[in-house]
Amino acid sequence: MTSFNDPATQTSADDSAPSTLHNDRILRALAREPVDRTPVWMMRQAGRYLPEYRAVRAKAGSFMDLCRNRDFACDVTLQPLERFPLDAAILFSDILTIPDAMGLGLYFETGEGPKFRKPLRSAADVAAIEVPDAERDLDYVMNAVRSVRQELNGRVPLIGFSGSPWTLATYMVEGGSSKDFRHIKSMLYGDPQTLHTLLGVLATAVTDYLNAQIRAGAQVVQIFDTWGGSLSTPAYQEFSLAYMQRIVGGLIREHDGRRVPVILFTKNGGQWLESIADSGCDAVGIDWTTELGDARRRVGERVAIQGNLDPNVLFASPKAIRSEVSRLLESFGPGEGHVFNLGHGISQFTDPDHVTAFMEALHELSPAYHR
Amino acid sequence: MTSFNDPATQTSADDSAPSTLHNDRILRALAREPVDRTPVWMMRQAGRYLPEYRAVRAKAGSFMDLCRNRDFACDVTLQPLERFPLDAAILFSDILTIPDAMGLGLYFETGEGPKFRKPLRSAADVAAIEVPDAERDLDYVMNAVRSVRQELNGRVPLIGFSGSPWTLATYMVEGGSSKDFRHIKSMLYGDPQTLHTLLGVLATAVTDYLNAQIRAGAQVVQIFDTWGGSLSTPAYQEFSLAYMQRIVGGLIREHDGRRVPVILFTKNGGQWLESIADSGCDAVGIDWTTELGDARRRVGERVAIQGNLDPNVLFASPKAIRSEVSRLLESFGPGEGHVFNLGHGISQFTDPDHVTAFMEALHELSPAYHR
Repeated sequence: MTSFNDPATQTSADDSAPSTLHNDRILRALAREPVDRTPVWMMRQAGRYLPEYRAVRAKAGSFMDLCRNRDFACDVTLQPLERFPLDAAILFSDILTIPDAMGLGLYFETGEGPKFRKPLRSAADVAAIEVPDAERDLDYVMNAVRSVRQELNGRVPLIGFSGSPWTLATYMVEGGSSKDFRHIKSMLYGDPQTLHTLLGVLATAVTDYLNAQIRAGAQVVQIFDTWGGSLSTPAYQEFSLAYMQRIVGGLIREHDGRRVPVILFTKNGGQWLESIADSGCDAVGIDWTTELGDARRRVGERVAIQGNLDPNVLFASPKAIRSEVSRLLESFGPGEGHVFNLGHGISQFTDPDHVTAFMEALHELSPAYHR
Repeated sequence: MTSFNDPATQTSADDSAPSTLHNDRILRALAREPVDRTPVWMMRQAGRYLPEYRAVRAKAGSFMDLCRNRDFACDVTLQPLERFPLDAAILFSDILTIPDAMGLGLYFETGEGPKFRKPLRSAADVAAIEVPDAERDLDYVMNAVRSVRQELNGRVPLIGFSGSPWTLATYMVEGGSSKDFRHIKSMLYGDPQTLHTLLGVLATAVTDYLNAQIRAGAQVVQIFDTWGGSLSTPAYQEFSLAYMQRIVGGLIREHDGRRVPVILFTKNGGQWLESIADSGCDAVGIDWTTELGDARRRVGERVAIQGNLDPNVLFASPKAIRSEVSRLLESFGPGEGHVFNLGHGISQFTDPDHVTAFMEALHELSPAYHR
């Protein structure tokens, strides 16, 4: 790997001519332009199901040590591309880097998911929160983006990402994962103004963070709204979608001579596709509970659609995997605007050979839908 | 409390003339007939948030000891009616009584939810499963139903219930609660025939179980499909709804001179309301992610709708609770066919006084919608 300290490589993405991109299928699909086959990436494609990931993780130490080390983060980001014919890389990082940079003290307990040492529970806690300087406080993320872009060398686009304000806020107020969202919903229903203050700060932070990723070289960005589906319809509009829309409005939409598409993914958000599609985003990610064909009819020509294989399908036989891939392609139907993906992150228990079977089925079956 | 061993009281519900019922608001609402105010009950209304429940539980021993003791189960079933002006009682029991009667060895670990000592993982495991004799193997449930009916003495109707075949199967195959449903989805995608065999046995068992509850005195029955929302649309139709529909078709629909309404509640099933409404049920339960008004428009005149306050609203102030109750009444709009409920079970951390505020708001605000 070459040195990453050469300032020239750090700004190469800022040249006026677009950088070379050998595979732009995902950018085309996100723009609903013709492709030769349906492009694909997988949420959490760099991760624990890969033995080579586990080897790097063992060298790195903790999960956050891995995220913070530019070389390690770059290595694991590229690993799935070596195994599978994926059409994009997604930066290996965590959705909680922003609250960590805000000083909440992110840590991971084995089998328990992320936790914060200092959760926010009061208006005073929220008032003390400040927007981080993305370039300075989250420089490890931008450095990893630069390294990945250099290593990819135009092979496929790099996707940057962030958690949505609502999703970040749930972790920050609950202090970790939650089954019932008791603390944040107590704030939502009992002290909505404090929650709006927090979400406003987070919307600014996410905008800055994604723009810094774009300047560093991210060519697509996705906002993960993991917990939006826990809200009522009006609460989703007011406390989640409104802030994602604010972010979309503040993002750099063209960089390095190309459009930078934005994908919004609300898990369990199938009931709200129309309003998500109206947010100004380029694509809506859907989980497997929503039919691709229905989603396409509902959003019309407004946006592309990303999804939506149930990750559990990958536990079945290659034959069953192929059958479900075929069903999903048929559900979306012929034409453009589909980025294939899972409906949620790949499970750590997945056999990588089954991912190969998934890719083979998609590569074999999808060209027929693009003639 | 009177003796429950008098055979005469056990068969009183079988007399040809309808038994007295002083408050039939819920039966009227489920039939979309006029009511003076919107009737209400709460999922998990008998439970840990009530100090008087915790007192009985401490006397009873384990959770299943409480379910199996006719007097204790009756006592806790009636407790919420002493505090709140609820329009129905729901039998205190567990959704996993059927798999327990099948010999899977139900037990509860503190903070971990239900578990089975002998989960089903293979076709051979499934082949060994037999339909229990509801009257004999689940006699403790029927005895509790008889006791509650006697104690209620026509005050409000008694709701019986069961888990759906899909939901029971998830617990039986996973061996307990699950985040990703890995084992049962491996069966669904990898060996669907075995899963269909299991679901067929469970559909028969649930039908027998609910019919036994109806004969013992349950005046409404609800099927809880807690995990149906984890499925893709076609998988939901094939592996969950089809079996609930089979049950609905096999239930006693008139007993003791009255219609016995059936409510289907699929958590996170908002995308499938139309097909649920076509199952032959009398009412569809919805969680808070679906708007009541939208749900009403979508199901039309076919069924009543039950729901859908986010239980987390009860953590907020009485003023905020009233505001959300008002919003939901307005969303459903004027007219008949609405049974008020939570969108999921009440949290153990709820202050009972906030439930009082909820009831007061509903009693004060809902009559205006029934003129």
